[in-house]
Amino acid sequence: MFESIHFHSEGRKTTSASKPEVLAKLREIVGDENVVVDTERVEPYGVDAVKEKFPPEAVVFPATTQEMAAIIKLANEYLFPVTARGGGVGYTGGAVPVDGGIVVGTDRMKTIIELNVDDLYMTCQPGLTTYDVQQAAAEVGLLFAPDPASYKDSYIGGNIAENAGGMRTPKYGVTKHHVLGLEVVTGTGEIIRTGGRTVKNVVGFDLTGLMCGSEGMLGIITEATLKLLPMPEATSTVRANFTSMAAACKVLTKFTPHGLLPMAMEAIDKFCIAAVEENFAFGLSRDAEAILLVAVDGSREEVEKNARLIEQIIGENGGFDVIRARSKEEEDKLWDVRRAISPSLMKYGTLKINEDVVVPRSRVPELVAGVEAIGKRNDTFVANFGHAGDGNIHVNFVVDRDDADAVARARKCVSETFKLSVELGGTISGEHGIGYVKAPYLSYAVDDATLAVMKGIKHTFDPNGILNPGKMFV
Amino acid sequence: MFESIHFHSEGRKTTSASKPEVLAKLREIVGDENVVVDTERVEPYGVDAVKEKFPPEAVVFPATTQEMAAIIKLANEYLFPVTARGGGVGYTGGAVPVDGGIVVGTDRMKTIIELNVDDLYMTCQPGLTTYDVQQAAAEVGLLFAPDPASYKDSYIGGNIAENAGGMRTPKYGVTKHHVLGLEVVTGTGEIIRTGGRTVKNVVGFDLTGLMCGSEGMLGIITEATLKLLPMPEATSTVRANFTSMAAACKVLTKFTPHGLLPMAMEAIDKFCIAAVEENFAFGLSRDAEAILLVAVDGSREEVEKNARLIEQIIGENGGFDVIRARSKEEEDKLWDVRRAISPSLMKYGTLKINEDVVVPRSRVPELVAGVEAIGKRNDTFVANFGHAGDGNIHVNFVVDRDDADAVARARKCVSETFKLSVELGGTISGEHGIGYVKAPYLSYAVDDATLAVMKGIKHTFDPNGILNPGKMFV
Repeated sequence: MFESIHFHSEGRKTTSASKPEVLAKLREIVGDENVVVDTERVEPYGVDAVKEKFPPEAVVFPATTQEMAAIIKLANEYLFPVTARGGGVGYTGGAVPVDGGIVVGTDRMKTIIELNVDDLYMTCQPGLTTYDVQQAAAEVGLLFAPDPASYKDSYIGGNIAENAGGMRTPKYGVTKHHVLGLEVVTGTGEIIRTGGRTVKNVVGFDLTGLMCGSEGMLGIITEATLKLLPMPEATSTVRANFTSMAAACKVLTKFTPHGLLPMAMEAIDKFCIAAVEENFAFGLSRDAEAILLVAVDGSREEVEKNARLIEQIIGENGGFDVIRARSKEEEDKLWDVRRAISPSLMKYGTLKINEDVVVPRSRVPELVAGVEAIGKRNDTFVANFGHAGDGNIHVNFVVDRDDADAVARARKCVSETFKLSVELGGTISGEHGIGYVKAPYLSYAVDDATLAVMKGIKHTFDPNGILNPGKMFV
Repeated sequence: MFESIHFHSEGRKTTSASKPEVLAKLREIVGDENVVVDTERVEPYGVDAVKEKFPPEAVVFPATTQEMAAIIKLANEYLFPVTARGGGVGYTGGAVPVDGGIVVGTDRMKTIIELNVDDLYMTCQPGLTTYDVQQAAAEVGLLFAPDPASYKDSYIGGNIAENAGGMRTPKYGVTKHHVLGLEVVTGTGEIIRTGGRTVKNVVGFDLTGLMCGSEGMLGIITEATLKLLPMPEATSTVRANFTSMAAACKVLTKFTPHGLLPMAMEAIDKFCIAAVEENFAFGLSRDAEAILLVAVDGSREEVEKNARLIEQIIGENGGFDVIRARSKEEEDKLWDVRRAISPSLMKYGTLKINEDVVVPRSRVPELVAGVEAIGKRNDTFVANFGHAGDGNIHVNFVVDRDDADAVARARKCVSETFKLSVELGGTISGEHGIGYVKAPYLSYAVDDATLAVMKGIKHTFDPNGILNPGKMFV
């Protein structure tokens, strides 16, 4: 697609974006100080949580939608790739320029345009962190519900582009359920407006839904109108031990007859428990083969009643050492174990491959057992934890980065895990997206006819393939 | 697009669908008894709630996805229009074949394929009524939350294709928020699968979201996986009178500081009250210039507490004659007024134009005042009621069907109402869609660049324009 792409001496790919006249025009659009080309300074913009390096030829920081549109029009004129980047903390390489070209950073687009308390929405630019959005809402007594673990670093634009998940999904759904409308610059540099300010809106095709999770391949989000909710009065968390992941997961279905859908339901397997305990000595029971964390929110009375009910149901269904937080501090402590997993697992190797497969939640025990068998068969350390309440499990294969054979075995584990997830009625990504990392596996989950439609849509939005090439369809 | 389209002697358009060889092939696909061509028998399939007649050349009833795909492939071979039809109760003509061709009825596709209580989903064919879906879920203690007023007649396929709304939107959102995955036959007759069985799913573009509200123009839904929720234990409704719609709507924002988002918040204006009272003598107060109905659901204690809180807030904010239902029967009675509006309004004329504009909810008073002024200016009776909690108001202009001048004035009112809704930050349809009825007004709400993308998507799914021509983009 892009002429004269070749590996630069420092591993940097070069396209027409590096032409002096292009750089000059970019500087004209956003101002000299907002076009970065120094090798050292562009490097951080070529990496995300995958930790592989794809330095861009330039990083450009527009402040307005008009500047963004002008950049994309220029890219169409000279045919160079444009990769949009928010916080740059994704797990599948969605924000790194694998085919070279420029990165467009939304770091200067941090304005809250409108925060409407009466009508329960906020309109903002894409460069705010999701934490910023949550805080701004909280200050006026409102909740922005999506809460990916990376919320302090990830930008709201990136969260929308990846349709980020998180822990509150059982009750609140995912990011796309909280986006009312978008302003988007398409791959041709056109500015379009999708949706609006209301939950009900059936005027033309639902481009808002389509943009959520489109991974920067259809357009770049320049403004978002987000749905807000009244802030619940209280939250409460119950933690319990189980003798197996299967037992822990079985409890999840027992809340339904009580009309109860907890806000969050997280499970942690024995390997994670061992890793955490070895590192932090929380004093977790050695009899615990699994830990379940269940959180509810709502009015104080409701939360109290539901937390008691959860304790009771867990107790009746094989849970032991059941603890309920009595204060915000105690609640934070219960979650410390969950937060300690990721760093603890790095004790087992220098490369942690964290996959986010998802299955219907009743199949989680089969998934976990299957993944353990895959690890054993391929002589690879594996640990599972995650959002059991919505079936989205983080499967972690941990190996030594420099041991090529071990890395190859881990990759084999990943491929087998994806196949297993699809066999169990699930799919290969619950919240991380496809990017370039999972692109080779897309066909496990999406058939050719469906893929053809997706490619057709890509062509409609971005006929020259300017936006984020090398992702999803490889 | 379609060759030799002309008006048939009985007002029926004729395309290649009427060719004997086409009809023979259709009979081969679905069986003789499932292809209907008799003038009398096809007529009901050419009408929806708009009440204008567009009889199809044939009505075809496939039972399987494969039959549906074969029909669409045939339509591409002979180039005739195919309009999918569920219950046929839409308000914008989405299911009527305005350009002729065949209607595909999903009446034989009524199978529940899987009802998974543990994993909170149901997979079914499109021909079940939404009531059937709700009942099947309720029997196993689960809730399918979307509830358009037409739920006893509308089919789930149609509700998804129109992204139907209803009364529970403030708490539960709209239909698209409850669809996990779809099987779809595209305009070329390809069978695609979108989404899956899990809430979290970020594998490729979100075609599920795109299909919701696509009005049968991108593909025909042949299977849907729906998200179910635990059935709440109880509901409660509070009804109150107000001295103005503005006062009634102002209350809606007062629940937020208490962390409360009621399930339903409906407002009824003085003209509706007068119409209902004249017809049914409910004994509504003559001082009431507006009625507000607020419903909550949840556990018994929570519902009791919230209903009391709502009574209190309403009382503190100008509501009078506040009534709370103490039983299911009493609750039904409170809602009788709401249900009585539509038939009562027909006292004022033989043609009721029911539009479903939507604005941010704090702008409802301005919308209502503006619409009253529009009615007065154009000498047309107007009454407003509807889903005030989500800003989706049913604006009803009622005139004599045979009075051409009055009908023209009403149409002028509609056009002015659409403009006003957009000016107030809303849009021209909250739940009825565009169809052919609102197609001339689409540009009020959607700009050219966005429209071009929508048309591109249409071309991707349906390059020959087979599916539901004459809708949306006219």
